[in-house]
Amino acid sequence: MSAAEAQAWAEQHDARTLETLFQFVSIPSVSTDPAYLADMARGAGFIADHLRVCGIENVALRPTAGHPVVTGDWLHAPGRPTILIYGHYDVQPPDPLDRWNSAPFAPEIRDGRIYARGVSDDKGPLIVAISALAAFLGTAGALPVNVKLLLEGEEEIGSAHLDDFVAEHAAELAADFVLSADGAMWRLDLPSVTVASRGLCALELTVSGAAKDLHSGRHGGAVANPLQALSALLAGLHAGDGSVAVPGFYDRVRIPSDAVRRETAAVPFDEADYLQSIGAPAGAGEAGWSLLERNWLRPTLELNGVWGGYSGPGTKTVIPSQAHAKITCRLVPDQDPAEILDAIEHDLQRRVGPGVTLTVSREAGGAHPAAIAATHPGLRLAMQVLEELYGRAAVPVRMGATLPVAGIFRHRLGLDTVFFSFSTTDEDYHAPNEFFRLERLRDGIRAWIRYLQRLGALPDDAGSAEIPSIPR
Amino acid sequence: MSAAEAQAWAEQHDARTLETLFQFVSIPSVSTDPAYLADMARGAGFIADHLRVCGIENVALRPTAGHPVVTGDWLHAPGRPTILIYGHYDVQPPDPLDRWNSAPFAPEIRDGRIYARGVSDDKGPLIVAISALAAFLGTAGALPVNVKLLLEGEEEIGSAHLDDFVAEHAAELAADFVLSADGAMWRLDLPSVTVASRGLCALELTVSGAAKDLHSGRHGGAVANPLQALSALLAGLHAGDGSVAVPGFYDRVRIPSDAVRRETAAVPFDEADYLQSIGAPAGAGEAGWSLLERNWLRPTLELNGVWGGYSGPGTKTVIPSQAHAKITCRLVPDQDPAEILDAIEHDLQRRVGPGVTLTVSREAGGAHPAAIAATHPGLRLAMQVLEELYGRAAVPVRMGATLPVAGIFRHRLGLDTVFFSFSTTDEDYHAPNEFFRLERLRDGIRAWIRYLQRLGALPDDAGSAEIPSIPR
Repeated sequence: MSAAEAQAWAEQHDARTLETLFQFVSIPSVSTDPAYLADMARGAGFIADHLRVCGIENVALRPTAGHPVVTGDWLHAPGRPTILIYGHYDVQPPDPLDRWNSAPFAPEIRDGRIYARGVSDDKGPLIVAISALAAFLGTAGALPVNVKLLLEGEEEIGSAHLDDFVAEHAAELAADFVLSADGAMWRLDLPSVTVASRGLCALELTVSGAAKDLHSGRHGGAVANPLQALSALLAGLHAGDGSVAVPGFYDRVRIPSDAVRRETAAVPFDEADYLQSIGAPAGAGEAGWSLLERNWLRPTLELNGVWGGYSGPGTKTVIPSQAHAKITCRLVPDQDPAEILDAIEHDLQRRVGPGVTLTVSREAGGAHPAAIAATHPGLRLAMQVLEELYGRAAVPVRMGATLPVAGIFRHRLGLDTVFFSFSTTDEDYHAPNEFFRLERLRDGIRAWIRYLQRLGALPDDAGSAEIPSIPR
Repeated sequence: MSAAEAQAWAEQHDARTLETLFQFVSIPSVSTDPAYLADMARGAGFIADHLRVCGIENVALRPTAGHPVVTGDWLHAPGRPTILIYGHYDVQPPDPLDRWNSAPFAPEIRDGRIYARGVSDDKGPLIVAISALAAFLGTAGALPVNVKLLLEGEEEIGSAHLDDFVAEHAAELAADFVLSADGAMWRLDLPSVTVASRGLCALELTVSGAAKDLHSGRHGGAVANPLQALSALLAGLHAGDGSVAVPGFYDRVRIPSDAVRRETAAVPFDEADYLQSIGAPAGAGEAGWSLLERNWLRPTLELNGVWGGYSGPGTKTVIPSQAHAKITCRLVPDQDPAEILDAIEHDLQRRVGPGVTLTVSREAGGAHPAAIAATHPGLRLAMQVLEELYGRAAVPVRMGATLPVAGIFRHRLGLDTVFFSFSTTDEDYHAPNEFFRLERLRDGIRAWIRYLQRLGALPDDAGSAEIPSIPR
């Protein structure tokens, strides 16, 4: 079978690929909000149908305790490696809606970019992977390797039920390694592969004062204001030097080796350019570390939402009954999500002031930090293909974000995950005006075709053999 | 003319009075939110029409830079005192709507209480005053005193344009003193008159970080989180002992005399009962003062609203571009609203951390604290009528809330204000399930009839003569 033929086929079908992606991103498959439940089912059904049309076999929607998983396979390459392709069909919520220049679920091409919620994370990159499979199946009628697919609907909510699903179907999902369509290249002008990602844990807190909202004149001074109490609790989570002040937070954090710090310092990264690109007036964060180190190598505690009282026009002289906050932490080896939540909850409870009570609820979807060895054959192949495509060496980068699947696949299947996505970190996923570059859609298909062809030429045990065990 | 006849007339017209009040509170005259602009005009028109029907003359809707003022008069009692009756037809916003047991603008009677937004503050007490006038005009065809009416539509937003209106029409509004239908009795079982109220000033602040919402994984650690920066700014506004930490905040605060503190301590007030009545787990606030002192004699800084980031279901790993807060202060003599806002803004700006910018906008409607002498004839008459009605001595009380009109009438017209309202402070105005007691509607009309009759028997100069000048 020929990569050149597959590539030609992909180019002939470029318009149809784009049409498929437009249909896919028109479905508001927002996993976090129950209001979109029917759209989640539509999203899963759409991608399953598309897999069948492309020639993938045994395609099925598989129930979980949450949103369904889509699976399929093509296993007719005896003696060749078997990869498990991972991606997700769910997307982030579109709000704030008024900040979008075009409707989030009505895709639009402007200046060579497709604008839509989920187009970069992860529907575009997922269509890339499937298009490469379709190109081989549409020409040779076969793939260079054995392929299993596992597409989840809960990536944006921490892959809440994927762990159970993978554990229950470990035999069915056995492979040499995982090739992920999710992830993102770090910079547009620098081909890169992700070798580490941070973990995640999340909680919501509610501070309650009086049983009802109170008039700030009639009662103010004599009763606790939950907003004031909440502000004090939240402010106390960080120290003056930008570090997290929660006792125990850093207990299990591995101090990066000098080698890792040198490697990080060698990455071409201009702090001023970076800050300008996001419109930030200055950097911030933990003293003693570069901005890149703060994002790649150090854990964080972030406030993702705070609300309580009156936020409408004008003034309302109210002392609200309750105030709320959402918090997530990004974790690095060897922090444990549950332990960190314990530490935060304990710290908050011991600091609650008079006149209020605090309730804390933990969000599902904790994830461990993850890493892959630089010597992994599947990773090295990805770097080689990128170098050929872009004419410069691919850089191994760490990432500040979380890819819970890496931890799940390592823990449940004993597999490493190679992230081979063609989205770029500047594409405003998780923000208004998310976009995906048309040129990256085409680059990605070309790269995946080449990757699959090369992988098919490797011995059967290339993926799994002699991969050193990586500390999580 | 006879108070007994007027009283009999009022009792005969009880059902009609209630119907009028129901119609009045069905109009969502929310002054703070532009969405209710048409309803504000309906509210003003309704009460103007009602005044005309009752026999008040020269009724007119008078334009201001904001919502219109309703004026009217009846001036055919030569040789008798002239009072300026004050009230307001605007109400607080109804949110949070899901906490109401019946729709806020669909009045309902349950257990002898009328439930509706604005029924206690101030539509019920305003109907009380007008009903007393109607009872005299409906029987004798005349009033015992000369009356001018001034009903505003901006009380809930700090009487933003009343000051200008009063200043421009000082001659027209000349009177012996102001009799206010607004205000509230402190406790249901204790007749009381208000002799002092706190001032008010308000601001909104916005903390801005990056130009757009950011993914907390891709950027977290390297950039400032506006919610974290805002929490630190807000937490720093108070000291550990519950006092306000803004430098200069207490500079002009008069330390209450021992006499005032003894008077306050003598007021029947049980802290445990109070806390139970509002469902608060404990008292809070400034160390060194009783709960009542904190509310009556000491200034406060309250957070009325804080918002930013994601507040929907589940988790959104976002670092929001902006975070916001609304703040109001309650002031005591001799604090100045503009000076206090200067002090807060200066304190906030000097504490802004790296990576964010702070913008502060001042809300209209600052108000000075106010007081009336215990010897004022109009005040003494109010206390006398209350004692006759309820069979026990009326208590002069201070209040923690703000009545900006007292400052305006003193400053612009040289007049003191006697607050003679029959709402009670437990009636959840500014909160869901606001109510007004049916019995107080009837008590109030009886008291106002008696008050007007007695006032008519006083010499013409009783209101203005020999009233000592009160330190503001």
